[in-house]
Amino acid sequence: MCRFTLLLEQMYKLDSPYTWLTFQVLCRYRNVWNMELKLRPAFLGGVMQASGNKPPAMVPNKALYMTKDLEHLASFVNIPLHSPADPFDVMFAKGSLAAMRFITAVAEKDKGSDHMVEKVSRELWNRIWSRDQDICEPESFSEAGLKAGLSSSDIEELLKLAKSQAVKDKLKQVTQEAIDHKAFGFPLIVCHVDGKSLVFFGSDRFELMAHCIGEKWLGPQPEKMDSHL
Amino acid sequence: MCRFTLLLEQMYKLDSPYTWLTFQVLCRYRNVWNMELKLRPAFLGGVMQASGNKPPAMVPNKALYMTKDLEHLASFVNIPLHSPADPFDVMFAKGSLAAMRFITAVAEKDKGSDHMVEKVSRELWNRIWSRDQDICEPESFSEAGLKAGLSSSDIEELLKLAKSQAVKDKLKQVTQEAIDHKAFGFPLIVCHVDGKSLVFFGSDRFELMAHCIGEKWLGPQPEKMDSHL
Repeated sequence: MCRFTLLLEQMYKLDSPYTWLTFQVLCRYRNVWNMELKLRPAFLGGVMQASGNKPPAMVPNKALYMTKDLEHLASFVNIPLHSPADPFDVMFAKGSLAAMRFITAVAEKDKGSDHMVEKVSRELWNRIWSRDQDICEPESFSEAGLKAGLSSSDIEELLKLAKSQAVKDKLKQVTQEAIDHKAFGFPLIVCHVDGKSLVFFGSDRFELMAHCIGEKWLGPQPEKMDSHL
Repeated sequence: MCRFTLLLEQMYKLDSPYTWLTFQVLCRYRNVWNMELKLRPAFLGGVMQASGNKPPAMVPNKALYMTKDLEHLASFVNIPLHSPADPFDVMFAKGSLAAMRFITAVAEKDKGSDHMVEKVSRELWNRIWSRDQDICEPESFSEAGLKAGLSSSDIEELLKLAKSQAVKDKLKQVTQEAIDHKAFGFPLIVCHVDGKSLVFFGSDRFELMAHCIGEKWLGPQPEKMDSHL
């Protein structure tokens, strides 16, 4: 395949451990595949409603399987994944709408670059999936923002921006783009190659994606593999 | 990891293209991983009912995605996959209960070896997923059996055996084993390593499975990769 441009868009949400794994792996491949990776915070609730899909963990055997599957994946991908004491509380009761609006505000301020979106997202993911900390309250966004390297005044501005109609509309717009791609869950990865869009769902399609876009898959820890080649 | 024995059991059904892909890949790894691979025909209907799961294609966006996903996978795994004109008719309306009973009869007659189970299964999968042919009628089982190398008298005996209570009970028993492993769909792969059982679901966990059992993943076409090593 003759590849001219590769732009990977990842539509994600913050309370999904599978999306967290996908995010880390794609960030690791940013230079390996010489691609432009765009991180697009979108709201899963809207996608589930539009597609009529139900969260997998609603089926008890799937929830059981996911616990083991995530344990295996965390070791394989090498990320410190520790389930929160009550993952259902994180994923269903509390949800991540406020966090997604905060990240959208970061994206809006950071226009043209995903540098800060990546750093703040990673800090928020580490809060829930490594340290069982809150990602719903303004204080949590502040802490994550400071760790990511934002100043206190930046954070103050972002917390205000996150509540604005413009940011709410932006999050809706990106969610609508995911729905237009016929999403039924996250992570959704859209590869733009040679004027075509290829859509992949989930954290388990990297090897297949590499095959489809004409790139080499070096496993979920490409730096490690690369040094062995 | 110190690995003493690796016995992979694959619980499968005949009308699932993802199971067909998994079946082919696992058969290719039989010698690569030096494992005992047991093919265990089970009935998905019982698993779905026991787990309260719904077939993924019931969500229209998932069905759309699966069509593309299977196209990508068929090219990657290198199997000639051509969707039947009416896949819903194959998967939901007609179903594969009679075919699973026929395969169970083959397994019962072939006790101690999966040689013929593998060959007959492959012939039946090729009927639906390559040539859009029936897998519900006795004539279809006969044709598949002849192609697999069974004699006409063997087939006659197997068609009778497939209707026996013993075979119906055997299929129920294997299905119950899948349910005991907390299955919520097929393919289900159970790896018995060092006295432990690791359970994997789906056609997209080979690389992870290899990591967990301490084996090398060489992609879905290991023969091809092997000659390049």
